[in-house]
Order: sequence, then structure tokens, then C-alpha cells
Amino acid sequence: MLGRRGLGGAQSTWRSSWASPAIQLQRTVSTKILSRRSTIRDARQLDSGSRVAVGGWVKSVRKHKSVSFVNVNDGSCLGELQITLPSEETADAAVAKLSDITVGSSVFAEGELREVPGKQKRLELQPSTLEVLGKCDTQKYPLQKKYHSLEFLRGNLHLRARTNTFGAVTRVRNALGQGLHLYFQENDFLHLHSPILTSNDCEGAGEMFRIAKIDGKDDEFFGTPTYLTVSGQLHAEMYACALSKVYTFGPTFRAENSNTTRHLAEFWMVEPEMAFAGLDECVSSAQGAVQRSVAHALDICAEDIAFFNKNYDKQIAERLERVVAKEFARLTYTEAIEVLQKAVSEGKGKVSFEKKPEWGMDLQTEHERFLAEKYVGGPVFVTDYPADIKAFYMRKNSPDSQDRETVAGMDLLVPKIGELVGGSVREERFEVLEKKMRHLGLIPEEYIDEDTIALAGGELDWYLDLRRFGSVPHAGWGLGFERLVLFATGMDNIRDVIPLPRFPGQCKH
Amino acid sequence: MLGRRGLGGAQSTWRSSWASPAIQLQRTVSTKILSRRSTIRDARQLDSGSRVAVGGWVKSVRKHKSVSFVNVNDGSCLGELQITLPSEETADAAVAKLSDITVGSSVFAEGELREVPGKQKRLELQPSTLEVLGKCDTQKYPLQKKYHSLEFLRGNLHLRARTNTFGAVTRVRNALGQGLHLYFQENDFLHLHSPILTSNDCEGAGEMFRIAKIDGKDDEFFGTPTYLTVSGQLHAEMYACALSKVYTFGPTFRAENSNTTRHLAEFWMVEPEMAFAGLDECVSSAQGAVQRSVAHALDICAEDIAFFNKNYDKQIAERLERVVAKEFARLTYTEAIEVLQKAVSEGKGKVSFEKKPEWGMDLQTEHERFLAEKYVGGPVFVTDYPADIKAFYMRKNSPDSQDRETVAGMDLLVPKIGELVGGSVREERFEVLEKKMRHLGLIPEEYIDEDTIALAGGELDWYLDLRRFGSVPHAGWGLGFERLVLFATGMDNIRDVIPLPRFPGQCKH
Repeated sequence: MLGRRGLGGAQSTWRSSWASPAIQLQRTVSTKILSRRSTIRDARQLDSGSRVAVGGWVKSVRKHKSVSFVNVNDGSCLGELQITLPSEETADAAVAKLSDITVGSSVFAEGELREVPGKQKRLELQPSTLEVLGKCDTQKYPLQKKYHSLEFLRGNLHLRARTNTFGAVTRVRNALGQGLHLYFQENDFLHLHSPILTSNDCEGAGEMFRIAKIDGKDDEFFGTPTYLTVSGQLHAEMYACALSKVYTFGPTFRAENSNTTRHLAEFWMVEPEMAFAGLDECVSSAQGAVQRSVAHALDICAEDIAFFNKNYDKQIAERLERVVAKEFARLTYTEAIEVLQKAVSEGKGKVSFEKKPEWGMDLQTEHERFLAEKYVGGPVFVTDYPADIKAFYMRKNSPDSQDRETVAGMDLLVPKIGELVGGSVREERFEVLEKKMRHLGLIPEEYIDEDTIALAGGELDWYLDLRRFGSVPHAGWGLGFERLVLFATGMDNIRDVIPLPRFPGQCKH
Repeated sequence: MLGRRGLGGAQSTWRSSWASPAIQLQRTVSTKILSRRSTIRDARQLDSGSRVAVGGWVKSVRKHKSVSFVNVNDGSCLGELQITLPSEETADAAVAKLSDITVGSSVFAEGELREVPGKQKRLELQPSTLEVLGKCDTQKYPLQKKYHSLEFLRGNLHLRARTNTFGAVTRVRNALGQGLHLYFQENDFLHLHSPILTSNDCEGAGEMFRIAKIDGKDDEFFGTPTYLTVSGQLHAEMYACALSKVYTFGPTFRAENSNTTRHLAEFWMVEPEMAFAGLDECVSSAQGAVQRSVAHALDICAEDIAFFNKNYDKQIAERLERVVAKEFARLTYTEAIEVLQKAVSEGKGKVSFEKKPEWGMDLQTEHERFLAEKYVGGPVFVTDYPADIKAFYMRKNSPDSQDRETVAGMDLLVPKIGELVGGSVREERFEVLEKKMRHLGLIPEEYIDEDTIALAGGELDWYLDLRRFGSVPHAGWGLGFERLVLFATGMDNIRDVIPLPRFPGQCKH
């Protein structure tokens, strides 16, 4: 077998360094050698006969009588590179240390790529040198070749990126994020680093974390109570009302005691904001950004998506291809309610909802998923929601034919997830916004008129200033980035699509 | 004059909507019209005779007897588009509202681009319609056509992006950030969203902000004291020791009472980390990333860089071109000390430092700037610092010829700024690192040996695990992103290169 593989003369070309203990070997890997390293992704694209140096972690070892196969991965792709070694009997004396090559150990190997006999286009590495950089005690190492539950891996957050699943999640997450950047950069948006620390506590988006006073000091560090942001929207509006198109992409926070598969205390949001824009721009940019992001993931992570399709969700590849290929559907809220009511009344008992669909209610996840999965079979925008269930900054439409108040808002609903994006046109009319904010108590009562708000420096006075001076129609939306990663991977638990999940009781590392 | 400009028939082609009050005009700008909007940057690239619709804010108005010139900017570029209007006398009755077009007001105009007579390739817009979207009361508007000090603008953070300087800062910042992403994505790095909230309080990088307990509750939300991160490095190591090459790009925090032009309480850091890498990879990737970032800014923000060169720093354009064109210089710390000592001894009194350069000391900004500005005249890496002045995780070199201990660390020093990047090879040897951490009190004394640390779950035990299981040589660096923006714009104060600066006593908005 060895002869057939061209390894007959291995003893002469393959110089083992295993004789030395691992800690010495680490010292022998010079920078000059390291800099010749190829990623395993690149190595797998080379031609048979190429010389290559790779580093990686051992995923499996199969020892046979005359040959051993060591599969190595370095995270550059899902796939592994097989390193083929003469067995202990046929190699030189140093081969006793073959026992150091265990699952989880790290190796650095240099040699020649050869086609695996009989398997066209699969290459293996026949090394002239192979060093064990870091040993791994299999008795103590938490990760073994066997299957580990996602729950078990959540207890080993610092090692889980070494598994196929979490390597793939990290690569797809990276691709989705970069796809979003590409969309925005190609479409005249400026990336805005909106602040994490803020004194605005009245955005109404949820419970906020607050910064503690410095030990032993009475004063707040910033002179005012300071919170972790729940949204960069207001700051994005500030910059859109100067530079037209901006987007934030940063962490946001909720101090809510939610222990679900859909909530985190710290998560990443993407929030574009556009001046000179209405609901159509809002809808088309959300579609464009989601499509560009998913297309980029399909483009550079095809192997990972195939992995998720095989192991986590048999529909994921097809669903993503359809997202990229087709215009998203669009319904008004009023139409959506009619669709849901009709589905119940004509469904002959096959369609039922826990909460009965009625005009004026907020759509529940069950409704959102029905619309996306059953009615449309793909992403769908729902627009023009009742004013009463939406935030103060959304722009009011003219009352509808039945004299009901709606706002120019939109949600993007997708299969499996429900709401992926929420956005709206913003109320740009000073008088309308000021009245609404006063009604909601966002402007303290003692401020009698426009001038006294400005003079007294009400907390959101700066937000009103954007409407006082050269106000423009503007619109924007927010995308919960982890929801997009869930959507694109088919993973079920939001704790599995962020590197270090934070939730009540959990902030380890 | 009007005739010469081809505006003789303006009354017939140019239909003013100024007759209606502004708030009604806003309602008339339909989404259909908005969606035809071009950015001013794009409009300026079109041919004379093109029809175009633009929106923007009025930067200046010059009213003459028969014609008025309105300069408009929309943030897509530094430059403005001149809109040329018939004067009140020559237009129709509606022109009384020409008075609504004031500095700071927002307008939407549609019409034809024509070359400005006598000025080749400068286009002006002759509008068929022009609407004032949002008026701006010049009596109340803080920003006028006149010069405003940077200090004054820091008091109007929510409006300063409307000025030339802060528009340019925002565009250059965006380009530098995207240039970094491009470098990392092109070189096999995965973007890692390292967490903001962390229970690691022992990184030694500085004072940390702590999260307050939720009102009325005795327990910590996360069960442990929780802080805002000072660095993503340890988390980047976690992922590099699984996926080879990652980078963070996120906000970091310091609760230090520093009121200087160089410090912020919240700032953005870029921290790549590479497995199978040594000091050479550290140096070459830092050079590559800085060059790619600056090249991208030069590429897409040429007009802005020219603006900074004219108004803030006459050397900035040349300095940036040189950064991109040339290999960065490289010195060891020992060589750098010799250079500094020689400069003093041979400088005939012309070179002096507040702190005398001596082997073993940390380099001060005065030393760093001398090396970059006077000695090299450009960026310079200084490597192999004394072990005593560097962090615990840096990898020890073999003692030098004089038996002094150094670490495989590097700083990148640049003119004007001093240290822009700091990085190192990480100590990957379990025994060496564990001993050092124990010595520094990072491992509580009661943990007797490797196994009890693991069992007792010492706080940084996960960090030691990376060396316990398949350890690899790895290296990384950190770049203070605001310092890069200072370097690339020639601005002096770090508070002017971040959208909403946070420092002691200041967290407004």
C-alpha cells in the first residue's frame, strides 16, 4: 500500500522531528518556516505535486499497520487535509512519538501534495517534516472525535470554535457581516460608530444596563446617569440629517430577564438611516442588504452552507438561493390581517393561532411565520402598521378609508425566524413630533414651548433640533444580526451564533 | 447675465413650489420623486445636459439682482453643487419664498446640469422644480456660514457633521475602517465580534467600567461582577487558537480620569490575532493593514484629504502617499535606545528629551515621535522590548548578549502620533505562562497545580486551556482606530475624530 502511494522511500524524504519533546519542538518552528504556511483552503486548491507547508489541529487519526492518516483543519475552511504518514514500523526510530499526534494536538507539516489514489481531485499531504507544536492530553481534553451536544459545547465556550459546527458558524457570520458592509459601501452609506455609552434613557426599546459609580466616588463618571445603548438609531438619524446615508453596525444591550433561544443581553445590530427617503427606499435597501449579505455567504461559504443543510436544516440551501434570486413580497398590515383571518376561516380547522388575528394587534411570531412560511413561502415585507403599537418616532400616514391611524413602518418577516428587520419613515415634522413626545412624557411638562425646551436642554432636545433646522424626510431600519445568522445557518439557538453569548447568569470569559 | 447662462426662459421651465408653506411642501415630496435622487458626488460626474434630482442642505446663498446662487451639499462628498435660480424679480410670483432658502435649510431640486460658463467641467444645476423641505431659522441656527472653532462645534455635537470638517472626518473614518476590513478579508482573517461585557477584570490594561446592579435587586444580573471590555485580545486568542486568523473591530473602554487630546473613555480598537505566526507575521500584517486602510482612504476620499492638507496639516497628503509606497522601517528596542542616546550626545544641544533615554525604560511619546519624525521620517517598527515593561502574555526571547530579558513584542510608531500599533508574539508555553501568571497573582495561590486550577475554575483558566490543549505559536496586535483617523486627517484632538466622544463629565446625547 505504501508503495502504491509513492511513500516507499519515505524514510529518506520524510525527516521526523518527533524525537524531541514537544516543548522543544515549539522552539524549533522558526518564523521563517511559519511564514511559508498556506491555509488548508488554499492548499486544497493546489495541483498535485505542489510543495506546501500547513499548520492545524488534528481532527482524527487512523493508525494502520503500514500507514497512518492524520486529518488536520486550520479553520480556513470546513474541510480537512489528510496527512499520510508511514507507520511506526516503517519509519525511522523517532516514530515512537507518533503517539503525540492525538485529536486536538497541533501540528506543522511541510511536504508534497499528491492525489489520493482512486479519488480524483482529493489531495493528501506527504510530509517531509512534521512537528507536533502542542500536545493534547486526550484524557483531559473536553472535545473528542465523538458527537457533542450543542448544550455540552455551550459549557466549553472557549473550545467550541474548534468543532465543525462552530467553525462553520464563525465563517458564515463573518461572510454575512462583510456582505452587509459591501452592500452599504457600494450604495453610498457611511459606516457610523455610534456610541455604546449614552445618557439617553428614554428610547423605550427595553430595560437598560447602567454604569456603576466608580468605587469610593459619589459622582457619576460622566456627570449624568449613563447606560449601555439599546439602539444606535437616534445617533444614526443625527448623522443622516447631515450626510444623507449612514449605517451603524455595533453591539446593543438589553437588561431583560429573558432565558429563551431568541434573546441575548448583548447582541449586534445593523441600523442604516437615509435622508431624502421614504418607505420605498426603506424596503428596497433592506431587501438589497439582506440579499447582498446572503449572496456573499453563499459565495465564500458554500461548503459551510452545505454542512448546515446536511446536519441542521435540510431546506437551508434552497431557502437562501431563493432569497437571493427573487424580489421579496410586500403586504400592508391591513392585508396581512385579512390573509390571517381568511386562513383561519377557510382553513377548515387546519390553521389556528393562539392569538386571534384582529386589526390593531401586534403580530405575534406565529402570525409572522405563517405569513412568511405558508402564505408567501419566503421573505415578506409588512408595511403600514397601526400607529398605536409602534414607536413615537414613526411617521404618521393619512388616516385610512376607515379612518384608522397607521404609520409608515415596515417589518421584514422571514421563514423560521419571523421578524428579521424592522424599520420606518421617521416623523420629520417638528410640530407633530414635539406633540407626540410631549404626550408620551419624553419632554418634561415645565417646558412650555419650543424655545424653553431648547434653553432648558431637555434630554432629547438635540433630536428635535434635527427637525428644527433643515429637517428632511428620512427613514431607516434595524436588523438583529444574530437573527440573520440563525436564518442563514438553520441553527436554532441564538446562543450558538455569537462567539460569547451573554444572558442572565452567564458572562463567563 | 441670465441670457448668457441660458436662463432666459427660466419662468417657463422652472416651476417654483415655494408658494406653499414648508410643512406642506414636505408632504408633496413623494417617494417616487425621492427615489430618483442622485448623490451630489454622482451628479458632479454627469455630463452637461443630464437631468438630475438632488437633495441637500444649503451651505451658502448669494443673491444678485437677476440671479441667485445656492450651494448645496448632501454629505456624499466634500464638494457642493451650485443651483442657479432666477432672482425674485425675474421669476414668477412664488419667488417671494426665496427667503426660505437660507443657510442650513434643506432643499430638493430637479433639473438640468449645465456647464458654468467659462469654468470648464464645473457643472451647475438649473432646476425645473425646487422645494424647501425644511426651513432653518438663521437667528436660531447655531451654524452659520462663518468660521466656527472646533471647540464651539464640540458644544454642538449633534450638528457638527453638517460642517465641511466633520463631514470629511466621517468619510475618511469610514474609508479607513472599510480599508481595514478589506485587508483582513483578503488575507484570510475572520471578523470576530468579541464581547463588550466581560467578567475578566485582570487584563491589566487599565481601569474598567462596571455594570451597576439592577435597581432593587441584590444580585448581579450575570451572577458575577461584570465590566466593559478593555481589549478583545484574549477572546481573539481564543478564536485564533481554533480558526487561525481572526480580527476584532469594536468599542473598548477605560474608566480613567484623563482629560487630554489623546484619551477617550470609549474608543474603537482593531485587534487581529494569528496562529502559526511569529514576530515577522505580526509586523508584516500591521504594515499591510495600515497601508491598505490608508490606500483606501486616498482612493475614495481624495477630495477630503486635499481639504485636510489645505486646512489642517500641510504635510498630510505627502505623508500618506509615502506610507502607502514604502516598506516601514524596523529597529530593535536596543537599537532605538542607542539611536536616541546618540542623537542627544551628537546633537550639540539641539536634541534633548525630558526623560533621558536608557535601556529598560518605556519609550515616551517624545522618543517615539523623534524616532518616527526625525530619525526615520515615516513609520517605524520597534521590536523586542524589555520584558519588565511589557504585559504578562508576551513571549520571552532568549536573553540577549548582555543577558537582558526581552519579549517578542513590537510597536509601530508614526509621525505626529507616536504609537499607533502595539503587538507581540504570545507566550504559548503552558509552564512559562502559568508561572508568570502565578507570579503576578493572576492565579489565586490556593490553586496548587495545573489540575486544581482547572477544577477550581480560576478566572483565566480558559486562557491557560488554550496552551493546555494543542497550543500553537501565535501573535497579534492592537490598533487604536481613532489614532489612525488622527494620523490620516491631521486633526489634533481625538474628540474630533469620533462621532460622539465620551470622556470624564461628557456623555451627552
